[in-house]
Amino acid sequence: MNIELAKEIDARWNSRTKPLGSLGRLEDLARDYCLIREETVPKLERLGLYLYAADHGITEEGISLYPKEVTRQMLANFEVGGAAVNVLARQHGVNVQIIDAGVGIGTRNFAREPAMTPVECDAHLAAGRADAREASSKFDLVGIGEMGIGNTSSAAAMLAAITGRSGSEVAGRGTGLDAQGVRHKAQVIDLAIEHHKLSRAPAKQVLQTVGGFEIARMTGFLMEAHRLKLPVMLDGFITGAAALAAVRMEPQTRGVVFFSHRSAERAHGLLLEELDGDPLLDLGMRLGEGSGAVLGMHLVVCAMRLYLEMASFESAQVSRSDS
Amino acid sequence: MNIELAKEIDARWNSRTKPLGSLGRLEDLARDYCLIREETVPKLERLGLYLYAADHGITEEGISLYPKEVTRQMLANFEVGGAAVNVLARQHGVNVQIIDAGVGIGTRNFAREPAMTPVECDAHLAAGRADAREASSKFDLVGIGEMGIGNTSSAAAMLAAITGRSGSEVAGRGTGLDAQGVRHKAQVIDLAIEHHKLSRAPAKQVLQTVGGFEIARMTGFLMEAHRLKLPVMLDGFITGAAALAAVRMEPQTRGVVFFSHRSAERAHGLLLEELDGDPLLDLGMRLGEGSGAVLGMHLVVCAMRLYLEMASFESAQVSRSDS
Repeated sequence: MNIELAKEIDARWNSRTKPLGSLGRLEDLARDYCLIREETVPKLERLGLYLYAADHGITEEGISLYPKEVTRQMLANFEVGGAAVNVLARQHGVNVQIIDAGVGIGTRNFAREPAMTPVECDAHLAAGRADAREASSKFDLVGIGEMGIGNTSSAAAMLAAITGRSGSEVAGRGTGLDAQGVRHKAQVIDLAIEHHKLSRAPAKQVLQTVGGFEIARMTGFLMEAHRLKLPVMLDGFITGAAALAAVRMEPQTRGVVFFSHRSAERAHGLLLEELDGDPLLDLGMRLGEGSGAVLGMHLVVCAMRLYLEMASFESAQVSRSDS
Repeated sequence: MNIELAKEIDARWNSRTKPLGSLGRLEDLARDYCLIREETVPKLERLGLYLYAADHGITEEGISLYPKEVTRQMLANFEVGGAAVNVLARQHGVNVQIIDAGVGIGTRNFAREPAMTPVECDAHLAAGRADAREASSKFDLVGIGEMGIGNTSSAAAMLAAITGRSGSEVAGRGTGLDAQGVRHKAQVIDLAIEHHKLSRAPAKQVLQTVGGFEIARMTGFLMEAHRLKLPVMLDGFITGAAALAAVRMEPQTRGVVFFSHRSAERAHGLLLEELDGDPLLDLGMRLGEGSGAVLGMHLVVCAMRLYLEMASFESAQVSRSDS
């Protein structure tokens, strides 16, 4: 951390007309944003959301409540602006970049064979890095989100494999499975990890073997974002799995990551612990699409506007504390 | 509750392109807003914040870190738009109504004598009711906020008296007291409750004896809001004390109240338990001014926009779940 810069930021906050520290995490948010941007008064005007969609071969195993076709249908819904994330993005002035990371083609069924070849995995990581470079030229703050029927199974399998946990610890309801469905999902994950000898395997191998195209692309995005000093707001469980892979592959990635919300997807808490992430919101959401990320970006904007626009004790002629 | 209306609201939510219930508390928020308004698709366009400022005689007891003059100075800061709540209100399209509920005059020192006479208390309750009637004609959703050096002592004393708790259970840091300051504040509260024989006294008597002008006015506002079906977003600890008094005086008031955030002021948790309130946000804020209320109102707007603007499965031609 740049100590001089941190001091300047704190001095600005502490001269604003409010009791010291009384804006709580909003003060931390603005501070972190400035530190990532390496400026005392950075601008924060252009907001982007990279929304990745992809199909998953693992849907053959009956691990989702919705048919695989919904991924393509929702991609069309994103294009016409009818999905939840479109509504939130319009409201908050967020520019949505919809990216087909493999709808139709999709990954292979990781219950039987690796989801991707090493070459495919590298290609998606590289594409994500290219997205981040584009994002860095267009936006001051970026969120990532995803859509892909079956992808909570991929994310859960990644979490289990990377951290050496069992399927029953990581499998959740996804779009709405019942208890029996969750047990089946856990078994599919356990069998895949055993079959591929993946427990505690390196993150890149895990990503290639049980990940998804959209997850690989977000992983590449996050690693490149660090190089570009581009702050990235995560959404929930799936984007968290991408962040876990990215941080294990390039630990410094953690420094540009914000955590928007605590998802209702069961194992998100474990993921957050692994990443030492403390989300801003806890609204019981479990939709994906970047819906939580948009709300999280909005709080960074609130924080920066307070930081930049509030009067100082001097300018407003307000007395400071007696202490 | 209107059961037919609730069914219509749920049917609309469940036909939107998302897994059932996946927007979590945002779905509850929109539902509650519609139920208060008694409409299936109510509009939510005009947002207001009633911001009350008043002085407190209890400041003579040295229970605040800031000099009493700060109340008047901050009132001026609100007028020119330099305070935190002004920044947030501008950002979120919230119309701020700044109300001088007794700056300069102020309440009497409740350590020695009742803060208000019964006639004064009634006058402030009536003024608050009149504010709510005005608010109802101007706004679809209203927040309340306050500024008054010394008013966490008033609010804490009200909480202690109404619920039969001790000063040490309810006294917090306010604008930033140290441990010794908090102990002194607790003693002042205990002595006042004993002196006025106020433990478990009726809420109106408590309000008159240890309350504040701004708190009485917010109490009247809340009781009238229920009659008008006007949803009101609370801020933190002080507005919570007003809500506690209002709900004890007229229990049905609870039905129009939203809780924006969990304040870092220590006894806010106790207050929320008394009111069975589960705040939307927990950002460690403890500023007052309605700053949390503005963020809370924004989430209601998000919820209603999602509810009103999202596509249905039919219109977007998205398949429903297999269940």
